[in-house]
Amino acid sequence: MSNPMPGARARPFLNPRSIAIVGASADENKIGGRPIRYLRLAGYAGPIYPINPKRDTIQGLKCYPSVTAVDGEVDLAIISVPAQEVLPAVEACVAKRVGGVLIFSSGFSEVDEAGRVLQERIVRLAREGGVALLGPNCAGTFNTRAGLLATFSSGILDKPPQAGAISLVSQSGAFGIHMLVLAGERDLGLSMCLTSGNQADVDVAEALAYMAQDPETEVIGVCVEGFPDFDRFLSAIELARRNRKPVIVLKLGRSEVGAKAVVSHTASIAGSDAIFDALLRQHRVCRAHSIEELLDIAYACSLRRHPLNDKLGILTVSGGIGILAADQASAAGLDVAELPAQPQAAIKALLPFAAAGNPVDVTAQITTDPPMIEPMFEHMLAGGYGSSIALFTYLPRNKALFDRMLPYFETVASRYPGHFFVMCVLADKEMRARLERIGYAVFDDPGRAIRAIRALVDFRESFEASAALRNAASLPEGKGIVERGAVYDEFQAKQLLARAGIPALPEECVACVDDAVAATARIGYPLVMKIVSPDIQHKSEIGGVLLGIEDAEQVRQGYATLMRRAAAAAPDARVTGILVARQVQGGVETILGVSRDPVYGPIVMFGLGGVLVEVLKDVTFRRAPISPDEARRMIREVKGYALLQGVRGAPAADQEALVDALVKLSVVAATEVDAIESMDVNPFVVLPAGNGAFALDALIETRHA
Amino acid sequence: MSNPMPGARARPFLNPRSIAIVGASADENKIGGRPIRYLRLAGYAGPIYPINPKRDTIQGLKCYPSVTAVDGEVDLAIISVPAQEVLPAVEACVAKRVGGVLIFSSGFSEVDEAGRVLQERIVRLAREGGVALLGPNCAGTFNTRAGLLATFSSGILDKPPQAGAISLVSQSGAFGIHMLVLAGERDLGLSMCLTSGNQADVDVAEALAYMAQDPETEVIGVCVEGFPDFDRFLSAIELARRNRKPVIVLKLGRSEVGAKAVVSHTASIAGSDAIFDALLRQHRVCRAHSIEELLDIAYACSLRRHPLNDKLGILTVSGGIGILAADQASAAGLDVAELPAQPQAAIKALLPFAAAGNPVDVTAQITTDPPMIEPMFEHMLAGGYGSSIALFTYLPRNKALFDRMLPYFETVASRYPGHFFVMCVLADKEMRARLERIGYAVFDDPGRAIRAIRALVDFRESFEASAALRNAASLPEGKGIVERGAVYDEFQAKQLLARAGIPALPEECVACVDDAVAATARIGYPLVMKIVSPDIQHKSEIGGVLLGIEDAEQVRQGYATLMRRAAAAAPDARVTGILVARQVQGGVETILGVSRDPVYGPIVMFGLGGVLVEVLKDVTFRRAPISPDEARRMIREVKGYALLQGVRGAPAADQEALVDALVKLSVVAATEVDAIESMDVNPFVVLPAGNGAFALDALIETRHA
Repeated sequence: MSNPMPGARARPFLNPRSIAIVGASADENKIGGRPIRYLRLAGYAGPIYPINPKRDTIQGLKCYPSVTAVDGEVDLAIISVPAQEVLPAVEACVAKRVGGVLIFSSGFSEVDEAGRVLQERIVRLAREGGVALLGPNCAGTFNTRAGLLATFSSGILDKPPQAGAISLVSQSGAFGIHMLVLAGERDLGLSMCLTSGNQADVDVAEALAYMAQDPETEVIGVCVEGFPDFDRFLSAIELARRNRKPVIVLKLGRSEVGAKAVVSHTASIAGSDAIFDALLRQHRVCRAHSIEELLDIAYACSLRRHPLNDKLGILTVSGGIGILAADQASAAGLDVAELPAQPQAAIKALLPFAAAGNPVDVTAQITTDPPMIEPMFEHMLAGGYGSSIALFTYLPRNKALFDRMLPYFETVASRYPGHFFVMCVLADKEMRARLERIGYAVFDDPGRAIRAIRALVDFRESFEASAALRNAASLPEGKGIVERGAVYDEFQAKQLLARAGIPALPEECVACVDDAVAATARIGYPLVMKIVSPDIQHKSEIGGVLLGIEDAEQVRQGYATLMRRAAAAAPDARVTGILVARQVQGGVETILGVSRDPVYGPIVMFGLGGVLVEVLKDVTFRRAPISPDEARRMIREVKGYALLQGVRGAPAADQEALVDALVKLSVVAATEVDAIESMDVNPFVVLPAGNGAFALDALIETRHA
Repeated sequence: MSNPMPGARARPFLNPRSIAIVGASADENKIGGRPIRYLRLAGYAGPIYPINPKRDTIQGLKCYPSVTAVDGEVDLAIISVPAQEVLPAVEACVAKRVGGVLIFSSGFSEVDEAGRVLQERIVRLAREGGVALLGPNCAGTFNTRAGLLATFSSGILDKPPQAGAISLVSQSGAFGIHMLVLAGERDLGLSMCLTSGNQADVDVAEALAYMAQDPETEVIGVCVEGFPDFDRFLSAIELARRNRKPVIVLKLGRSEVGAKAVVSHTASIAGSDAIFDALLRQHRVCRAHSIEELLDIAYACSLRRHPLNDKLGILTVSGGIGILAADQASAAGLDVAELPAQPQAAIKALLPFAAAGNPVDVTAQITTDPPMIEPMFEHMLAGGYGSSIALFTYLPRNKALFDRMLPYFETVASRYPGHFFVMCVLADKEMRARLERIGYAVFDDPGRAIRAIRALVDFRESFEASAALRNAASLPEGKGIVERGAVYDEFQAKQLLARAGIPALPEECVACVDDAVAATARIGYPLVMKIVSPDIQHKSEIGGVLLGIEDAEQVRQGYATLMRRAAAAAPDARVTGILVARQVQGGVETILGVSRDPVYGPIVMFGLGGVLVEVLKDVTFRRAPISPDEARRMIREVKGYALLQGVRGAPAADQEALVDALVKLSVVAATEVDAIESMDVNPFVVLPAGNGAFALDALIETRHA
């Protein structure tokens, strides 16, 4: 049965009503024995059916010779048999109409071609039978509240994670278990975890979509290598965003070396990292670059306090650490806004030696007068900060002293439920737990706390962004601007763009010198003249572009020069004609582009022309189509953005004309994705505000018919 | 007595032969009582003299009414009395001729003007008496092997740091203690620690110099806000480098907000952070941006294994975590070089499913066959990697299994004493200690391990750099190229630069039109003509520059045009003449500069011209003078460096001519530091290789006479 709910196919793996273990072992330390032991340890309440033709009972449970022999419903079948026995096991599961098949076994596409072929047969079998399949080569799944510990890994047994608000999904099995173990060590509460292994069928995206609808899940950590279906991934992250669940992504295979290892590790397509990075920005997903960072941010999100703005207050007992935190916050783009004069004066009145500006440095003096914490903290919060860091360093070492301080911390935190409080201290687990209970996120290192606050601020902005980030630009009815397999010359390309709303300057393509002179009357001087030929891609390299044509005589000379140069450089080239175009003065040269990424789909690119794009690769990307707001974000993202604002007395450029062109180009990219291989509008010149922006050259490569 | 050894004045504070505590208290929990208790707890072996006129004994020790009443030598006097009693206490110390006075007391320059004045009086007194002074407003000093715990802070009492190879110096007292506590929590071994507080006399640099000569110190962590004498700091870091002791600097006040807080926190001059950052690169000092990072790197350095190269081998039981580590290593600029074919084949022969390229993924299979670790690890090390990371994730959770693995890890590590081994595992303290004993640095998070490896590689390079980084360019005898208070016009500035070896193109400054025409015969066409006036700084803005002068007639017209424009735009300007100069085609425009920084001294700047410098601030700095090697490093540091190598078919620029000019400009900056306020050579055009590089314009601002 197909289910229209996104992520519904992940349900049997995360909330199964009953579980069969195919390849069950009586030895509870063997891979086929562990899941039974773990499920019972975790308190799984549904029926557990060991499947093993050689036994009548296993670990005290009735054992069945086959899945089909089980009397009741089998919702989840865990397959833990050698690779060559997996196919018949899945056949039995299909016959039994189980909800999902979870395959621990390895030896498939991650190993060799024979394994890949076998994997494909198994997946086809499962799909035809309407059975969802997880793995193969995965490390299982986990749900604290359901008592689900469907794994063979012994890593988390010492300390199974406690119930909480964080869900994790990882393509790599060992990676997923590692995160679980680490979460356990850090006393983080978890809701669900799923590892997808070779993700031959159910993938990270489906698990993410399921978790995005789990009422117990407040935040989702994702570790992913590749995307079998990027659209599905985008839908899942958008679903999470609509449900106000922060998503943090750690992508493996960023570097060339890493991407190479991904290929040997699984059969994933890694895709270009620069594009992926930009698409995460587009969809307001937080990207982590280490396991530690992912868990830090997930921890902060799980506390259900969300900063209302990006202003950070700092209360410190050490001037030095306060300055460090201010430095780190500034580097992260948080606003360490100065406290207004009145609360500053109030702080000074209480403690003349205090620094009151923000950081507020109450000095070690606070240790002699703990009740002073309350008014000091309150005065600091008068700054209207969305979050704050209290830097109390190693004071919890003096337990008696810190115990006396806690009630004041609690009073303050209880008065500001919308504020995100961080306590930066060296504290043992018990003290951390106490601080968390009274409303503080606890971090050792201020730098890591600030990274987490930055992410919280971004998430709030993301949740407040318009509901429809993805299909922000409405696509026109019908297709057919670009024809697959067609060859367009520069003039045709610009005409095509003009029909899509991306303007060029007045220009005509003429086939004889008299027409060229006649055209000047309509276009006006100064002019550019260019050779137009579908066979000459790099006009300027053969001298095929003439600038600064000022009169009819120069037009005539230019016409002859261009024809002569074309004939000399490319005797066999078909010359369509000569382009006569208005020449523009000034403006900022930009580059707009469209490409079709094999993983990420239709991509629109923006960059600033010249040295910035050629030397610094100062470009950014979005998946098409985009809204005007997203185009504005894109434009502001490039390093050379100041050029568009006007530098050294230059006027500000017509950014709205640029925004309009980017949006319209993205619509072309999206509607014509089947016809276009790539498109370059280079240069696209942006004139001073009010004067518009124009394509000076364009190149369209279509896909083979 | 003055001592010529650098850092000798820090000796009484870190290795005192005897200690007096002025303001000693019988209450061992009071600030004046704690140092006595702590020194005895730490096992300080020298005499301890409590000073307090009201008592005969304190904490069981004979008490003296004054420092002068002590019979024996007082090497270190700790002063723990209210601010207003500090001056007479220091007077007594001077009378007693103590080695050093350490002042805990606050209420000086960090508070207000009166405090600053009092502090100055005390410092003058100490200096005139030949007594070194540490503080005021400092948290004390510490030396594990000397049993020195000269602090009032209770933070480290629970767990005083154990003896080891790390020394720390911190301007901020609470920051220093915080690092000590954290080091204790992480079981890091420490040699010495000093906090300098207001550093009115002995500063961070002197402590650093002393530690750089401590045979027990292997690595020094520095936390600093400002520099009373930057030369002294440079000398100290150079001394450490010569002694092969890595120095890691955490600078407070990087950001504007932070720097503002520094001023309120102490009386430090923060200096420009971009310059400081470049000077650390120049002197091969590692910069940390968080406490955690500083301690991670210090820990790695303390293990006395130094990677021989920047190649990193990765051995993993989890493909996913292996890829993550490869990504992080690539991002850090480490070389995750592929394993040669032969060891790859050997790995595959042992375990066909293994990934063998690097990362070497031995999969969870290794857990069923621990002895396989040894040959696998050995094959991986055949790649010639200077360091390696073994990613064994959460396996130590299974203690019995990991115990069986340890002997193989030990065997491998013992065979490669020059290799830096990292074990990335989630392990308890006991297992960490065991791994460290057999030669592994232990990290939880691969990202943090990789940051530390990067630092180790950089330190090795730094130790191998030529002994004399600082005075790399020999300074000429005598001074006097630039005259203080003088005003130079463009022509004079370029002539002055030419005398220093920085060439300009052929040019003459003429005072009449006939001379201009005559000059063309010597210079050759095409020409540039410019107005020359000490009163017109921005020539091009008034149309005072004419390009592309091709013949005598244009020279005559141009002369008249320039004179007319100058008269119109600046009727009162003194016009020295008209500059007639060869016009150059092509080349890469760069900017060379000199400035005199109030904190860091004579600074030379390099950047690429145009949008890179104007929009992206793509410039870098060095303290003058620099060697040719340093100039090359500087040039390679800017983001647009590829422009000099030649992009899009452009020829490579004459980098050696640029290097030569930068070195010579740095010599001018260093020798003329008393006369020059700033100098700009903009543009300095670098022609294709072999064709040289030339100053096209220059501006010198001299200091007021």
